[in-house]
Amino acid sequence: MALICCSGVDFTNRFPDHRRMPVARAPRSRRLPRYVVILAGGEGKRFWPRSRRRAPKQLLAIEGRRTLLQETVRRLLPLCSWERVVVVTNAQHAAAVRHQLPRVRADQILVEPVGRNTAACIALGAEWIAARAGDAIMIAVPADHVIKDARGLRRTLAHACVVATDADALVTVGIAPVRPETGYGYIELGKRIAGQGGACWVRRFHEKPSLPKARAYLAGGRHMWNSGMFVFKAGVVRRALQQCVPELYGALEGVWATPRGVARRLQRAYRTIPSVSFDIAVMQPAAAMHGAGPPVAVVRGDFDWSDVGSWVAMPEIWGCDERGNAALGRMVPIDSSDSIVYCPERLVALVGVKDLIVVDSEDALLICSRQRAQDVQRVTHELKERGWSQYL
Amino acid sequence: MALICCSGVDFTNRFPDHRRMPVARAPRSRRLPRYVVILAGGEGKRFWPRSRRRAPKQLLAIEGRRTLLQETVRRLLPLCSWERVVVVTNAQHAAAVRHQLPRVRADQILVEPVGRNTAACIALGAEWIAARAGDAIMIAVPADHVIKDARGLRRTLAHACVVATDADALVTVGIAPVRPETGYGYIELGKRIAGQGGACWVRRFHEKPSLPKARAYLAGGRHMWNSGMFVFKAGVVRRALQQCVPELYGALEGVWATPRGVARRLQRAYRTIPSVSFDIAVMQPAAAMHGAGPPVAVVRGDFDWSDVGSWVAMPEIWGCDERGNAALGRMVPIDSSDSIVYCPERLVALVGVKDLIVVDSEDALLICSRQRAQDVQRVTHELKERGWSQYL
Repeated sequence: MALICCSGVDFTNRFPDHRRMPVARAPRSRRLPRYVVILAGGEGKRFWPRSRRRAPKQLLAIEGRRTLLQETVRRLLPLCSWERVVVVTNAQHAAAVRHQLPRVRADQILVEPVGRNTAACIALGAEWIAARAGDAIMIAVPADHVIKDARGLRRTLAHACVVATDADALVTVGIAPVRPETGYGYIELGKRIAGQGGACWVRRFHEKPSLPKARAYLAGGRHMWNSGMFVFKAGVVRRALQQCVPELYGALEGVWATPRGVARRLQRAYRTIPSVSFDIAVMQPAAAMHGAGPPVAVVRGDFDWSDVGSWVAMPEIWGCDERGNAALGRMVPIDSSDSIVYCPERLVALVGVKDLIVVDSEDALLICSRQRAQDVQRVTHELKERGWSQYL
Repeated sequence: MALICCSGVDFTNRFPDHRRMPVARAPRSRRLPRYVVILAGGEGKRFWPRSRRRAPKQLLAIEGRRTLLQETVRRLLPLCSWERVVVVTNAQHAAAVRHQLPRVRADQILVEPVGRNTAACIALGAEWIAARAGDAIMIAVPADHVIKDARGLRRTLAHACVVATDADALVTVGIAPVRPETGYGYIELGKRIAGQGGACWVRRFHEKPSLPKARAYLAGGRHMWNSGMFVFKAGVVRRALQQCVPELYGALEGVWATPRGVARRLQRAYRTIPSVSFDIAVMQPAAAMHGAGPPVAVVRGDFDWSDVGSWVAMPEIWGCDERGNAALGRMVPIDSSDSIVYCPERLVALVGVKDLIVVDSEDALLICSRQRAQDVQRVTHELKERGWSQYL
């Protein structure tokens, strides 16, 4: 299966770095068409008051002028044409997705009746591609991450496409950790895959670790952050779904076989579909089969990356002033430091404050201690309790 | 001059309390018509971002539904009719004043070409009354104070009217201090005025004291807060102005003598008028003359009172929740305490914060440490520096 032998190259890095390696290339004849499936059904409760039931994180311009969804498509487009971009979303957000991506045709926007987590989204995308293109490469990416180095991302995904084609593997993208982050899942690396430009087999997936564990992962050099991006042949992932979550696969199999009655079939299927993440339903069990199931590989992500889990992630994206204040919008800080301000439509003056998160929206305002960013969800609970659903 | 003798009454209070005294009443024949002059030309820089050049504190509804100016008129109206309410404001705010007080006729709104502090405002009011009514009682009050006990205020002012009539005095309203406040001026009491229901002569005025001095004033029981409210005959205050600030008096004397050309005469007068407060220009020198000038008296204010010097004053006015949070607007506090939120048009959620002032407005937002309320003025300086005058 190996196309180019890379023995004799000296690997001194902690992680195999494919930039320094001869990257495997499939001969022209073996290249499969590529489809990008964008997972745009998330909720983003930790971004209240900007994210709402009607406008979750991926539909917001928290990075700048374009929304995260628009940025995601923009970054990936050189990998395939507009006709091969597929967006999976749910009924509540479909109109906004169509509005934000006018060049994506309606039939490329796959609308789930309700959100059922990522396993269902990926199964839906795989079925759609299988019905359209037979076997093809499927690149599945979340719509709500921030990546500035689009070129690096595409280089990584192109590498993953080669590995997925050559090894018939479920390929995930790992990010070399730069801090002992406890908010991410980790990928434990196994053996290097011969001739695949530094790609490795996956030994195990680890859920969000404790701080001591995260420190050990960082020091050991055998773990990467799990970016939530996957590449595989549509046929390979369908077989993996069938093997690992047969009830989910069975409910969605052939849902796009004929164009008539799709909505009705989806309605029926989503009544029984389990709500489970693709990591837990497929990647983790497949990695645990050690070859008895579909092989699971990882390529190293060669780009900056943030899953923008909460407002605390924003200084990395926006940059800071000399006192550690980060803002999107007009900020006047007076004797204030280490604060995060999202206020694109209004001026914000800070006087004598520290470690605050300030988020403005049309009808609601959040002032939160930076140490309490995870507790923003408690606001939405409280709003539900009080019956103030207009702010949800 | 004394009408009713009050000797034999036992005064054990630290302050003469006129509620317990026989209040002097002028016989019907000696009662003069009463005019209320409302000083509505202030700027209120410490209330940014709600107070602006175009909308200073007195024109805002920081207390609730009505603006401070509207509340001021409402409280005082039973003392005189609408026809005897005079508002002194400046060109920048005249339209807003007219809009907020539609029942006050245009000729009762005295428009200064530019703000020149309170001595000029009071001189202008006195000239207007003299031109209309000959001698009459003039009650001069700031438009930007908060007083909930309107009945108590009117009782005090009625008392001051009697003292002003009987003693031909410049009468000021003192407030019995309840804390060693360093942000107010103080009035030092002299001898009680015989037969004037507990009114006293004023020994001296004191500017804002240091904390040790303020504590001594509070303990000694011979000092009151200077409320900035005054009552006198128009003729008496004109003579006092002539004596104490002749250049100001001379510039405004007879400005309303004929209706034609008033605006032009005011324009000319305000070019040379000194910008000085009535306290400093008239009350302090008059009290220092010890009888050689107009006599200066003080009556005890029998009501709650706040000059609302900054946002820190608001909890007293709005009330607090059990954790010390005070809000005008919808607030959702989560693990937060001792914060002040003014946000009438928007919901505010606080998560894990303490001692903050949060003030919302249409185009700007202030987040300020409660200990730094006085520094809000630094924001407006900074905005000027940056040339962002739209926020001023």
